[in-house]
Order: sequence, then C-alpha cells, then structure tokens
Amino acid sequence: MSYPSFFDIAKQFKVIMLDSYGVVKNHNGLIKGADKTLAFIRNEQKLFRILTNDASRSPQQQVDKYVELGLPGIHLHEMITSGMMAKHFLEQKITSGKIAYLGTENSADYILQAGLEHIAVADVDLNNIDDISACVFLDDEGFDWNIDINKVVNLLRKKNMPVILANSDYYYPVSHNDIAIATGGVAKLVENMLGKKFIHFGKPDSQMFMYAYEQLIQDEYINKNDILMVGDTLRTDILGGNKFGVKTMLVLSGNTREDNYESQIRSTGIIPDFVCKSIME
Amino acid sequence: MSYPSFFDIAKQFKVIMLDSYGVVKNHNGLIKGADKTLAFIRNEQKLFRILTNDASRSPQQQVDKYVELGLPGIHLHEMITSGMMAKHFLEQKITSGKIAYLGTENSADYILQAGLEHIAVADVDLNNIDDISACVFLDDEGFDWNIDINKVVNLLRKKNMPVILANSDYYYPVSHNDIAIATGGVAKLVENMLGKKFIHFGKPDSQMFMYAYEQLIQDEYINKNDILMVGDTLRTDILGGNKFGVKTMLVLSGNTREDNYESQIRSTGIIPDFVCKSIME
Amino acid sequence: MSYPSFFDIAKQFKVIMLDSYGVVKNHNGLIKGADKTLAFIRNEQKLFRILTNDASRSPQQQVDKYVELGLPGIHLHEMITSGMMAKHFLEQKITSGKIAYLGTENSADYILQAGLEHIAVADVDLNNIDDISACVFLDDEGFDWNIDINKVVNLLRKKNMPVILANSDYYYPVSHNDIAIATGGVAKLVENMLGKKFIHFGKPDSQMFMYAYEQLIQDEYINKNDILMVGDTLRTDILGGNKFGVKTMLVLSGNTREDNYESQIRSTGIIPDFVCKSIME
Amino acid sequence: MSYPSFFDIAKQFKVIMLDSYGVVKNHNGLIKGADKTLAFIRNEQKLFRILTNDASRSPQQQVDKYVELGLPGIHLHEMITSGMMAKHFLEQKITSGKIAYLGTENSADYILQAGLEHIAVADVDLNNIDDISACVFLDDEGFDWNIDINKVVNLLRKKNMPVILANSDYYYPVSHNDIAIATGGVAKLVENMLGKKFIHFGKPDSQMFMYAYEQLIQDEYINKNDILMVGDTLRTDILGGNKFGVKTMLVLSGNTREDNYESQIRSTGIIPDFVCKSIME
Repeated sequence: MSYPSFFDIAKQFKVIMLDSYGVVKNHNGLIKGADKTLAFIRNEQKLFRILTNDASRSPQQQVDKYVELGLPGIHLHEMITSGMMAKHFLEQKITSGKIAYLGTENSADYILQAGLEHIAVADVDLNNIDDISACVFLDDEGFDWNIDINKVVNLLRKKNMPVILANSDYYYPVSHNDIAIATGGVAKLVENMLGKKFIHFGKPDSQMFMYAYEQLIQDEYINKNDILMVGDTLRTDILGGNKFGVKTMLVLSGNTREDNYESQIRSTGIIPDFVCKSIME
Repeated sequence: MSYPSFFDIAKQFKVIMLDSYGVVKNHNGLIKGADKTLAFIRNEQKLFRILTNDASRSPQQQVDKYVELGLPGIHLHEMITSGMMAKHFLEQKITSGKIAYLGTENSADYILQAGLEHIAVADVDLNNIDDISACVFLDDEGFDWNIDINKVVNLLRKKNMPVILANSDYYYPVSHNDIAIATGGVAKLVENMLGKKFIHFGKPDSQMFMYAYEQLIQDEYINKNDILMVGDTLRTDILGGNKFGVKTMLVLSGNTREDNYESQIRSTGIIPDFVCKSIME
Repeated sequence: MSYPSFFDIAKQFKVIMLDSYGVVKNHNGLIKGADKTLAFIRNEQKLFRILTNDASRSPQQQVDKYVELGLPGIHLHEMITSGMMAKHFLEQKITSGKIAYLGTENSADYILQAGLEHIAVADVDLNNIDDISACVFLDDEGFDWNIDINKVVNLLRKKNMPVILANSDYYYPVSHNDIAIATGGVAKLVENMLGKKFIHFGKPDSQMFMYAYEQLIQDEYINKNDILMVGDTLRTDILGGNKFGVKTMLVLSGNTREDNYESQIRSTGIIPDFVCKSIME
Repeated sequence: MSYPSFFDIAKQFKVIMLDSYGVVKNHNGLIKGADKTLAFIRNEQKLFRILTNDASRSPQQQVDKYVELGLPGIHLHEMITSGMMAKHFLEQKITSGKIAYLGTENSADYILQAGLEHIAVADVDLNNIDDISACVFLDDEGFDWNIDINKVVNLLRKKNMPVILANSDYYYPVSHNDIAIATGGVAKLVENMLGKKFIHFGKPDSQMFMYAYEQLIQDEYINKNDILMVGDTLRTDILGGNKFGVKTMLVLSGNTREDNYESQIRSTGIIPDFVCKSIME
C-alpha cells in the first residue's frame, strides 16, 4: 500500500506538533531520519512542539536526552510534557502539606518545581498521614510494585485527597515485540480498587494542547486550522488532537502498525485526518 | 450544619463561573434569589460566565429563556454552552456532507451555525448514507427512542464517521424527586452497543473552561487563581474546574443534596474547594 | 477457506446443545436445512437441547413457533430459556408483592408462572410503590422507551429491590445488515444511570447449562465431556460453554461472520474448540 | 442497633454454607467463637460447606490450616475452593502443553492435580512459548509484580490462549484497617492492558454453588430453599448466593462493616435476605 508523504502534508501547516515516543524516537534510540525531518521543519520556518505524556523526566532532561541521542536543536520551550500540566495543577490547587508520589526521584522534580514538599510512597508512614495533602502517579519505575501499590491503596482509603495521574498511557513499547505497563495502567489498577477516578493529565486531555496553543498565539497569528498533530497512538494523540479541533496525522512507526491500523480505526471510531508511514517518508 | 456564605467566598475572586441548571434555575424556574446574586456580582464588578452542558438551545435562546424566567441582564458573550464547543469542532474538522443528529430542531441550530447541512436521524435513509459525514448527539428529546436509537446504531455500524456528544450529562432533575436520562446517557447506550467512545464535549472536559478563559484574558489581566467555578454536580462542574486548575465550589441546590454530599465526595474522590448551600446564602 | 463438517464433529458427542437465533433460525425464519440436522440428531440418538437467551416467550410458545416455521419435533423439555431461569429465581427469592416488568404481555407469563402478580412499568404509580417487590427486564418490546425507561430509573431510585435481567444479549439481528438493541442493552443503560449491576440470567451465566445438565444426568450417564455447545456468539454461547466446561463450536451463520471471526476470537480471547460454517454443512 | 441471632436463622435451614475469610477466620486467626458455631451446626445435624475464593492452597491444606488455628472437625469434602473449579476446567478443556501460572508453588498444586504440567511465568522463555497452552492466575503472592505482570501481558499478546482467573476477589483485609490487592485485582490490570476478559472462577459465579449442590443432592433430599449462604462480601457471597437462588445472610465481621453496610446495600442493589453481626451471635 502507498501512503502520502509526511513532507507534502506538513507543508500545508504553520505548526507541527509531534508526539515523542513512537514518532521521533523509540526503544532503539532516535528513529533514523529524525534529524532530517527536524531540519526540514526549521528550514520551512514551521513552528514546532513536542507533546509527550512522559512525566518521568523534566523538559530540560528530555531536551538533553535528545541531544544525547543525536538530535540537538530542540528548544526548551518547544518541549511540553504531561508532568508540566501536573505541576501547574499542584501550584494552583495545593498550598500546603507533602505530596506523596509513585515514581523515580527524577520524576519527583515536577513536585519540587511546584514549590511543594514530596515524599515517596515507600517512605510514607501510614500511621502518620495528616500532612499528606495530595498524591501523584508520576512513573511506573522507581518503586516496588508488590509493596508500594498496596501501600498507596491503603493511603487513599485512609484519607481523601486529590490524586493526580501525570501520564495516562497504559503501556509503552520496550522492544519490537514487547510492551511494559505505564503509569496509566498502574493508576487504573488503584482506581479499580478504590472505585474512584483520578485527575488525568496528558493526551487525550486538552491541557497540553491548550498550553501549546496559548504559547503560540502570543507570538504569531495562528489559529487551529494551522496546526497538525502527529502521533502513533489513536487513543491519546489522535483523539486528543481531534477533540482540540486540530488536524491529526497517524504515523505507523510506533504503537499502531501497518497491518492493523485500519481495523483499529474502525473499532475505536477515532479517525485521523491523515495516515503516513512515518515522519521520515 | 452551617455553611460559609457564597457572598463571602465570591468576594475573593475576580471571575465567577456558574453552572446553570441546579445553580441558577431548576425544574420550577429561577431559583429564588438568583436576581439578587446576579446584582451582587454586577455590583462588585466581578466578571461573570455561565457554563452549561445544555446543547438543546442556542446561547441566544438560553439568554432569552432567562429573561422569560425573570432574570434579565445576562449578556450573550457570558453564556457558554457545550453546543458551542461541538459547533467549533464541526467547523474545524468537517468540510462537507450532511451531519446526522439526534435532538430537537432547536438543537440542530448549532449544526447550521457551523455552516453545515443537517439531517435528523429519523430522516436518514440507511441505504443511502454516502453523504453523511458525521453524527451528533444534541438532545434527549425530539426523536422516538424505540426507533431512532436503533437507527443510529445501524448507521454507525455501516459507516465509520466522527461521532460527537454535545452534552455528556447522564441525567437531569425533572422534579424534586425524579430525573430524566440526558443525552450523555443515550449516547452511552450507543457507545456500549458499538464498543466505541465518542468525542465528548461539555464539562468535565476542558474546552468550555478554556474558551471562557481565552475570552477573559483578552480584556483583563486574569489568571486561574482569580476564577471560581460554582456547580451542583461533582462529576462535571467540580471535576472539570479542578482539572482546569481553578477553585471550585459545590452548591447543594441541585443534583447533590445536603444529606449525601459528604459520602459522594468521599466515594468519588472529587473534592471541591468550598461547599455552600446555594448561591443565595 | 474450508471448515470441518458439523456432522463429523457432532458424531463424537452424546449431547448436542444449540443456541436458537443465528443457529437454527434467523430473521428470515428457519435456516435452510435445519430440519435435516434435527433429523440427523434424532437418528443418531443424540440427546438434544436448545438454550436460548430469549425471555420474550414461554418455552411452549417457542416450541410452537418452531412448528409454525416448519420444524416440528422439538419437545418441551428440550427447550430451555433464560426466562425460565428468571422464573426460578423469582420463585425462590420473592414471596410477596408485585413484580414490575419491562416487556410484552407474553413475556410477563414467566412472572405468572412463578405464582406472582405482575404490573407493567407503564402502569406503575410512582407515588404508590410500597407493594412493588422486584423488577424484571423481560423484553425490548412492549413499552415506550422514551417514557418507560425513565420511569424504571425513577422507580429504582425510590426503592431498593432485586432487579432481574432475563436476557443479557446486547442486540439481535433483524436483517442481513441491521441489528436491534436487545433487553441487555436497555438494562445496561439503566444500570449505568443507577451505578448498579442487576442480576443477569442467560448465557454466558451458568444457570441454563446447569439446568440442562441436571436434567440430563437424571436419565443417562452423561458427563461434561459428552456435551457439545453450538452457538453463533462468542460472548454468550462460547464463553458460557467454556466456563461450564463443555466443548464449544462457533458457527458462522449468525452474529459472527466468516470475514471477522478470527479477529474477534483474537480480540476477545474467547476460543471455541471448533469452528464450522453452520449446523447444515 | 440490634440484629437477629445467627443461630435462630440457621435453625430454619438444612444446609449452612459459609465463606471462610471474614466469617470463620480473619487476619488474626480464628474468629472467637467459631468452634462453638461449628459445634452447633454439627449438633443440629445441619449439612455444612465452606465456599472460599482462595486458590492459594489445596482443600486439604485449607482443612489443615483450620486444625492449626484451633478448628478441627472440618471434613475434606466440606471444603470447596475456587481453585478446584479452575482445576476442573483445565481437566475438561486442556489436553496438552504447559500451564503458565502466577502464584505460589503451593497454588500450582491445582494444575498438577489436573494432570497437567505447570511453569511459573517467571520461568517462561518468551521466545519459546509454543508449548504453553493456557495461563492461570492463582495467587497474588509468589512472584515479582514489577517483572512478572509485564511478562504475562507480553505472553498473552504473543499467543492467544485460554486464561483462567482462579480467584476473582479484588482485595482481602490484612489488618483491621489495611487491605491487600488480591488475584482478581492483578488479573483486572492485565485484562485492562489487553482489552480482554478472562474466565473467572469463584463467587459470584455459580460453579462453586453448583458443585456443592450436586454433592448434597446425591445423599439427601435437599432443594435450594433448604440452603443458607453466609458471607461478609456483597459482591461475591451475597450476589452469588442470590443468583444461585438460595437464601443469603450478610455478616458484619469482615469486609462489610456495621457503619456502612446499609449504604453499600443501597448503592450496589445487592440485597441479602438476612443481616447478622457474625456467626457467633
């Protein structure tokens, strides 16, 4: 089957928004050709943003990681993470107390940046939780699932508090064939135990799109018709872009594969405006 | 039990956002005292918006309805409906074809305003659906449930198209004791039949908050800390306001009652910043 | 693609259990050749049962309907309906009061047979419900969806009572291409409104299999290995048979089609022991 | 509040079925007085069964455990576990290959008893899974959640096979205040990842009730009216007993507490025939 060229479509837009994992990089590192695509975007003087549901690292760390992988030239203000949205929420809504979290030390940086004190769920004393004022699911790594998932269930049974999910992805690819459960999957287990629904950040929710959009319209005359969102996942990138009202492109270089994208579109009813093989072709 | 006064809390904010049904009006008409509360808001020179998940009538019709009920003085730009969000989506994403809809003639106005042709599901010929390009759930009234719900299921089985839910409320009160299933409930039945999830507009999704916010910041120096969202429903008004990052107030004059609000907050984990009896006390 | 012959497989079993709709009959009437298949079963001296999730008619009416369609020779004790299971439940658990029901007059027969008084939801006076002791969803026909679905929601909000779903099918085919929402779909809408789960009868639940099995082992030395369950629906017939521990055969003459059965088996994880085109080949 | 006496109600029945955890024993050991209640049941010549969703130990081990806790006198044929149901399923449906499992070595005994070979998920080589013919969730202990839950997700993505859940409990109490996620919770996480529903054994499904019932009617003239099912959990014990058609008693000595049982009955719609404080009063 033949697909239209990413470049031909991208030319029609002023702003290109890219998901990170499965679009620009994958478990092997940078997807081959990503540097040329970024050069094309710069050359054509398109505006550019990366929108990632990755709350395990700060925007600066994510930019640094791209440099390390061989893709310099992404500016800090172009990197938008779901962790930033969680941070904003904490800033607006929580004024005191400690924030309990599941995740790595790195991911807890978002809490620090919000000017709040953090404590790993592993370090919480369940008999002394008066000063815990909120709970955040930041990353699927950095804790013992057997012990700490049960502990967070009991923490949230003992005290009613805002619970924030900084990444609603269910899973991510770790090799060509294998996946790993992501933060959204762990949080869903806890939601099921408690019969509650936490506050979800990250695509498909609108906050990251809105954040990017507000930034963009400050400098340039942009409207939603000028924006193309490119992603590899129907449930997050494409649904989120569709809901926000921008044009969407599904690429087949990540979660969604050439041999099943049509049946997935049919079964989910989530319809991208364009389908391309990758952002390199 | 004693509750803080709405007026004392409202004084601390520059912008008051109110849900409509259960806050300002109910099945009996205007809630007694609403005129005085609006006068207070004007007098204190607060900015004011109504955010309603009601897509059955255009903003103008909703303003007119308030005049009829005895509450003049709401400006058109202060009335934000989930139907407007659905309209914007259609404008951005659908460029041709007819939009099939479930709802009253009145509600179909949103499709017309988007510059698109509409057709009631009742009038669709299932053997001739090539020109149907999207489907919208606008209202729970205006069609025969036995016939047209089955018809929309079959339409969506035959052709994959964007499906939009303009009001995600499950139900609304029709008397002190009784409720009626709202558009969101009807849509959920169809979603279950098809195993799909439609594109939902209206609270708790962020679009209406974002729309109001973008309007507000054009004229005044406002940030999210200046905004109070007031509603009677945890799942829509309070969750939506919390996610958007503004302060939230639950009032006990509608869906949520004095005798069960505490257990509902505990069981849902949706925590308002304030609880008041109504916007009149 | 080639499929094994139903006859070759059936020969290996002592008991043949058939689903009705989509296997023996369909929207056009008897599936061509059903009479020969029944003759084969009789000739080979297999035991035979029909297990149907149809609670709209009594077993006798269902046998009579088969005669009318041109398939005489089904005995009353061979016809097992989900309505019979609901009737048994009512007999065991409800000793007084009236049973409110959604369905046709015909379907209400099951309540009468349980020795209980029945009242159509349409005839219930919501201000006088002290004597209503249970509620049954019997059929998707026989009532006004706009009015009576809302009425049953309010009935069940006002009084906590056992609610029984006599047919958990979500939909049934009404022509080659079209489906209609079945009782299970209507009940799910009400379950969603109330946040409750009713008591479900019919496949995939075990009661009908158990009822048939207990009958069979009274007369003959039968064990589960001797039984073949044949159906056209993975979620009910095949899952139910698998859970009960008998061998299962999917036929492609009804809900599940030749062009998608493999992807459905993969996506649901419900795996039949055999797949045949129909019970006629 | 005053409750009727367990003894007065029990006298009206020929068969007493008890859930184990939360009714006869708890995290502290035997619930005080359980020995006298068993003596009463023996003295009154009632028939007696324990129905437990515990698949972590064989029936013999469970009987031995009761002896250790100070309750001798339970016969092996009186102990019915959800693991036994899973074992029967494997015997009927799986004829070759290895059964992958999550759980302790002890729990894997059920696979051995079914005459099948077992392999812990931890020992599965994902590149060599041709001989894995089914997968069983037996216990929440005995494996590394971080590693093995991800591994089972990938196993089931690579090969479509029957997946059996031997205990559908979501959680169990580990102290007066704290709970731990049970096998059913772990399985639900994996079900969510895969978008599939496994084959569930244990209450509320009917198999254990049916198994007990078939045993009982062989020796004595018993019908369902003669049976009382006693449990501490609405979703499993009471719903299961109600669906099976026997009388049900909720006791407040385990999962469901005196201060919230009424609201739980109301919110779930699962209505026991009797409510008692415990089986000792």
